[in-house]
Amino acid sequence: MTYLPPNRYFSPDPAQRQIALTLYQTVADLPLICPHGHVDPRLFADPDYQFGSPAELLLIPDHYIFRMLYSQGIRMADLAVPRQDGGVVESDHRQAWQLFADNFYLFQGTPTGIWLTDELVNVFGVSDKLNAKNAQAIYDQIDAQLKSPAFQPRNLYDRFNIEVLCTTDAATDTLAHHNAIRNSGWHGRILPTFRPDAIVNLDTENWRDQIAALRHVSGIDVVDYTSFIRAIEQRRAFFKQMGAKAADHAALTAFTTQLTDQDADIIFQRALRGETTNADAAQFTAHMLFQMARMSVDDGLVMQLHVGSYRNHNEHIFHRFGRDMGADIPIASEFTRGLRPLLNQFGNNPDFTLILFNLDETTYARELAPLAGHYPAVKLGPPWWFHDSLNGMHRYFDQVMETAGIYNTAGFNDDTRAYPSIPARHDVWRRAACDWIAGLVVRHIVDEADGAVMVKALAYDLAKTAYKLA
Amino acid sequence: MTYLPPNRYFSPDPAQRQIALTLYQTVADLPLICPHGHVDPRLFADPDYQFGSPAELLLIPDHYIFRMLYSQGIRMADLAVPRQDGGVVESDHRQAWQLFADNFYLFQGTPTGIWLTDELVNVFGVSDKLNAKNAQAIYDQIDAQLKSPAFQPRNLYDRFNIEVLCTTDAATDTLAHHNAIRNSGWHGRILPTFRPDAIVNLDTENWRDQIAALRHVSGIDVVDYTSFIRAIEQRRAFFKQMGAKAADHAALTAFTTQLTDQDADIIFQRALRGETTNADAAQFTAHMLFQMARMSVDDGLVMQLHVGSYRNHNEHIFHRFGRDMGADIPIASEFTRGLRPLLNQFGNNPDFTLILFNLDETTYARELAPLAGHYPAVKLGPPWWFHDSLNGMHRYFDQVMETAGIYNTAGFNDDTRAYPSIPARHDVWRRAACDWIAGLVVRHIVDEADGAVMVKALAYDLAKTAYKLA
Amino acid sequence: MTYLPPNRYFSPDPAQRQIALTLYQTVADLPLICPHGHVDPRLFADPDYQFGSPAELLLIPDHYIFRMLYSQGIRMADLAVPRQDGGVVESDHRQAWQLFADNFYLFQGTPTGIWLTDELVNVFGVSDKLNAKNAQAIYDQIDAQLKSPAFQPRNLYDRFNIEVLCTTDAATDTLAHHNAIRNSGWHGRILPTFRPDAIVNLDTENWRDQIAALRHVSGIDVVDYTSFIRAIEQRRAFFKQMGAKAADHAALTAFTTQLTDQDADIIFQRALRGETTNADAAQFTAHMLFQMARMSVDDGLVMQLHVGSYRNHNEHIFHRFGRDMGADIPIASEFTRGLRPLLNQFGNNPDFTLILFNLDETTYARELAPLAGHYPAVKLGPPWWFHDSLNGMHRYFDQVMETAGIYNTAGFNDDTRAYPSIPARHDVWRRAACDWIAGLVVRHIVDEADGAVMVKALAYDLAKTAYKLA
Repeated sequence: MTYLPPNRYFSPDPAQRQIALTLYQTVADLPLICPHGHVDPRLFADPDYQFGSPAELLLIPDHYIFRMLYSQGIRMADLAVPRQDGGVVESDHRQAWQLFADNFYLFQGTPTGIWLTDELVNVFGVSDKLNAKNAQAIYDQIDAQLKSPAFQPRNLYDRFNIEVLCTTDAATDTLAHHNAIRNSGWHGRILPTFRPDAIVNLDTENWRDQIAALRHVSGIDVVDYTSFIRAIEQRRAFFKQMGAKAADHAALTAFTTQLTDQDADIIFQRALRGETTNADAAQFTAHMLFQMARMSVDDGLVMQLHVGSYRNHNEHIFHRFGRDMGADIPIASEFTRGLRPLLNQFGNNPDFTLILFNLDETTYARELAPLAGHYPAVKLGPPWWFHDSLNGMHRYFDQVMETAGIYNTAGFNDDTRAYPSIPARHDVWRRAACDWIAGLVVRHIVDEADGAVMVKALAYDLAKTAYKLA
Repeated sequence: MTYLPPNRYFSPDPAQRQIALTLYQTVADLPLICPHGHVDPRLFADPDYQFGSPAELLLIPDHYIFRMLYSQGIRMADLAVPRQDGGVVESDHRQAWQLFADNFYLFQGTPTGIWLTDELVNVFGVSDKLNAKNAQAIYDQIDAQLKSPAFQPRNLYDRFNIEVLCTTDAATDTLAHHNAIRNSGWHGRILPTFRPDAIVNLDTENWRDQIAALRHVSGIDVVDYTSFIRAIEQRRAFFKQMGAKAADHAALTAFTTQLTDQDADIIFQRALRGETTNADAAQFTAHMLFQMARMSVDDGLVMQLHVGSYRNHNEHIFHRFGRDMGADIPIASEFTRGLRPLLNQFGNNPDFTLILFNLDETTYARELAPLAGHYPAVKLGPPWWFHDSLNGMHRYFDQVMETAGIYNTAGFNDDTRAYPSIPARHDVWRRAACDWIAGLVVRHIVDEADGAVMVKALAYDLAKTAYKLA
Repeated sequence: MTYLPPNRYFSPDPAQRQIALTLYQTVADLPLICPHGHVDPRLFADPDYQFGSPAELLLIPDHYIFRMLYSQGIRMADLAVPRQDGGVVESDHRQAWQLFADNFYLFQGTPTGIWLTDELVNVFGVSDKLNAKNAQAIYDQIDAQLKSPAFQPRNLYDRFNIEVLCTTDAATDTLAHHNAIRNSGWHGRILPTFRPDAIVNLDTENWRDQIAALRHVSGIDVVDYTSFIRAIEQRRAFFKQMGAKAADHAALTAFTTQLTDQDADIIFQRALRGETTNADAAQFTAHMLFQMARMSVDDGLVMQLHVGSYRNHNEHIFHRFGRDMGADIPIASEFTRGLRPLLNQFGNNPDFTLILFNLDETTYARELAPLAGHYPAVKLGPPWWFHDSLNGMHRYFDQVMETAGIYNTAGFNDDTRAYPSIPARHDVWRRAACDWIAGLVVRHIVDEADGAVMVKALAYDLAKTAYKLA
């Protein structure tokens, strides 16, 4: 039997643990603010949406899970992960689930293990530890629940106590699902986020198809840099009208620059001709980050920047299974010099918000906290991706907060495509935050009254404020 | 009411905490060795020197404080920080103080918050937590004290139990204040430190004015590299005669090299003509670090090297408010290759002391501790600037000491321009050191007898020895 | 008296400490798996081998020890460390030992201090803390023991409960000692490891002499790249036949590439003519790592890669004392881009094992754990060299395991040339692992049953499996 005691994940020190628990009880039931993530808005567009099999919900789409299984020599096809190239994969989800259960021990001590366990216990009422023997019985138990109305996404939204959930949507998206949600009269608050990477990063596969889609959706004939910018501005206006509060940008590095319109157009024309070089793509992304900051200053959309993931590291996997298959590997990052052009132009504007995410923890104390602790525009996002874990949060609190202070951070976001994992992810953050603050209290660095304000800020207020969701 | 219990900042574990407290009691009252800092010697030159308003003492000159307020959108002009460009700033120090008090909560959990709280309680007897309501009453309380003789710098020197305090002085400084102190017969020990950055780094603003000042103060007609070196050597001799024990050098990187005299002169001549390139400046600084090591070997001045701060990152602030305005941001550093030329020439000399300071903690375990644990000349300075905090010290102890051992470190220095914060800063270090050693004792890695020797070394002996202050 | 209590090195928290001790008792007596190290096989080839003086055993060959003493200004010659250039060194080992004992306090809080203390107590029965006064008495005590049969290497092998010990042997080694061991009928399991650095890295001193040795030992006339590869393959086959399970490669960086045979030969020919450039050497090493992976796929030898040590940093020491004299300093490393060519070719092969070692801890969470948590071939070696310490292990567990999981690591290896330190090193790892797992148990992240499986894996199973030693 899995037992999830009320004081889990806290320091073992009895004094700190007691304070952590007391603090936790003040934030445990606060609504969830989900300002950044990858849940599909389709889940909410159809009031009667139902999830598929347990494997379809929990295993097949989750690259956190199958990367670990793959790393131990298990074939992704055997886990029923669909191939893009038409290759055959396991079609029996029970078989794939069995393989997952056989190897569930691999997740011991990992954040994925923590989330899955919490999800099984608290969302699905499964308190037996998943293993080879009980795999099919647990499959049946989850499967039956997924067919009940209580497990439809809108009902889970209420059960999860979500206050607002922002999705991530391509610049070329029509936001049809978002429109359906708005027109349905449902009380849930699901907002789009503007993510233009595919049109901005010239080295995107099939970039010219993306531009064709942009032409189509914007009605603007994108033939040069000027019309490209106009189309983007038009899309941002549309997203904003549809409720968006933020834009989101992913880049390999934090390098920013301001090209002349003429130089930008020369690169853009090369790209239209399919003649992009690596240097072109790097320069253009750096320039477009600068432009996106300018637009954010103009339209008020919060600018998020996710830096440092080397995408599709494994060509073998990429060619067979496509993007986002657990084969993105971080690289070292640099912000101090890279962001300087952008920050010198826009960073002193307190109405502009730039939220930074990063996979290189060495920049926490060295670059990010000093930048956030100085520039009015800069806020730091929570630990991202590989670092969205108890130890990752611990390192974040210890390396960021002394220099940045908590009020230059943007609270938590779950950044997940795994909808049923949302409560578990917020709970880990809230527990980690309470334990960290309890450590300050027990060391007499802050008192309990201040500590209570701080944990509420970390658990709820900061995310809401930073993303203008109030 | 703020309560500062005797066991503050220690681990919550009762056994470790008790050992930490016992160790702390053996070092709490040791005199303060202050071998590196930025206190103005003028404070001690005039026996009747009085500080200005509370804002002038605690807020206006302290970039640790106003950077945090600025990062939250508060204008520096509203904090009465003077502009260099003649722009108007708040002239009512009570108003600036009020704004600071309104936002004092921003410092919760930060080292600045710890120092300020300790200072208010232990220096000024203010035990109410500073807030919007009590701001003016506390202002009055501090203001009244600042007008009393007990709060004159020389009297605070005794009250703070300072044994020696080294200032940091430009190579072109006449050391008039130091001379006045020496001639006054006062028992305090205030020593100058030779800091030639402004003449050595060719990219200093108005470098040619600095050279003019060097000509003036040295009486040497600096017209080429040879006369430049001669003038520096003359200044070092003068500083040494005035009691200096050390020189101090700041550089963006730890790159060192040895140019030929001829190549050095070519660069120097370009600089005299105002034609310095970035490459020139980098090469010349690297060469001059090498030369400074040579001079230190000759004259015995301890060589300090501070690496990794990208100065004046924010042009907007720099143009309005000037240097040292909270807008210096660290960068990644490299020592292994960069210092090799210098260390191969001078590093095996046990009579030469090179104390390294750094803002990139990733170099602690990777480069600095291995270098200090091998080269006789190398010692490591304490955690610097953004890392001069409880967590910064914790990381330093954990990442440096296993490889370097404590005896290859230089103890603590407060590195502050905020004179009344000196006791608080040393106290944080002493507590952190005692807690770290207590952690070793309770894990049976060192015994209590050895631990007691180690905390005394960290709190007092190492700084005194490394800086030749015995 | 030195007291080594049963719960040493564990967390002070009583609950965690109790769990750690309980876990430790289940692994403390497991046999030692030593899959990578530098013990000389000669120790086992002669059944009657006896160690020399205490200084010859414990001080003179151990660069961990004399680097620390040297860093404090003690001359290496005074420690009886032999010079390569014929210079005079202390010949009285008692004198050298005295100097070591006089300065034994320098090792307080260091891993070397922990190992030495454990060794003195548990191997030699010396429980007095070594100091200036008892130095000679302890010398006598150790010296007497070293002359007894119980302290012959084969007898210590049994006493240390070693199950298998792999040495590290040059590609040009005849493995005569290994052959003698095999022919002696002794039950101990001593296996060679193929280490071709000296022939692969073109910037090795006297590389052409190495090639001459390769010609001699292989009987292949190495005149070009093709014959070079053939000779290496022949040596690998010989090592495998002599029991080798692994190859080991050291490189300054993790850069890999695949040259054409023609380009490889152009570089090789330049090297044969003594015209190697730095770029040649870097390209060739990168290419040969790729080739070594190919050979490992073919012959099944586990591929170890040790990255990031800048060798012979101190020319003064190198010219007088030679290699491996405590003057190797780490540099920053990069794996994500560097290993990509090799991993794209071979990393998806679950029958290939690539074990990575590294001196730049910033790559743990950022690059190494993500790579190991994805590629079937990649496993992570334990903390290496400067990081083979309690804090180094703590950082490794905290930064690697959440993303990689424990089953993508290769357990522990002692990597030592100091034979009598082997039990102490494994004991530190086992204790650190138990304490880490106890921390997970007390936080309710894993339960005690799972924790017990995990500590056995870390202490024994993982190393045995990863190195195919079952």
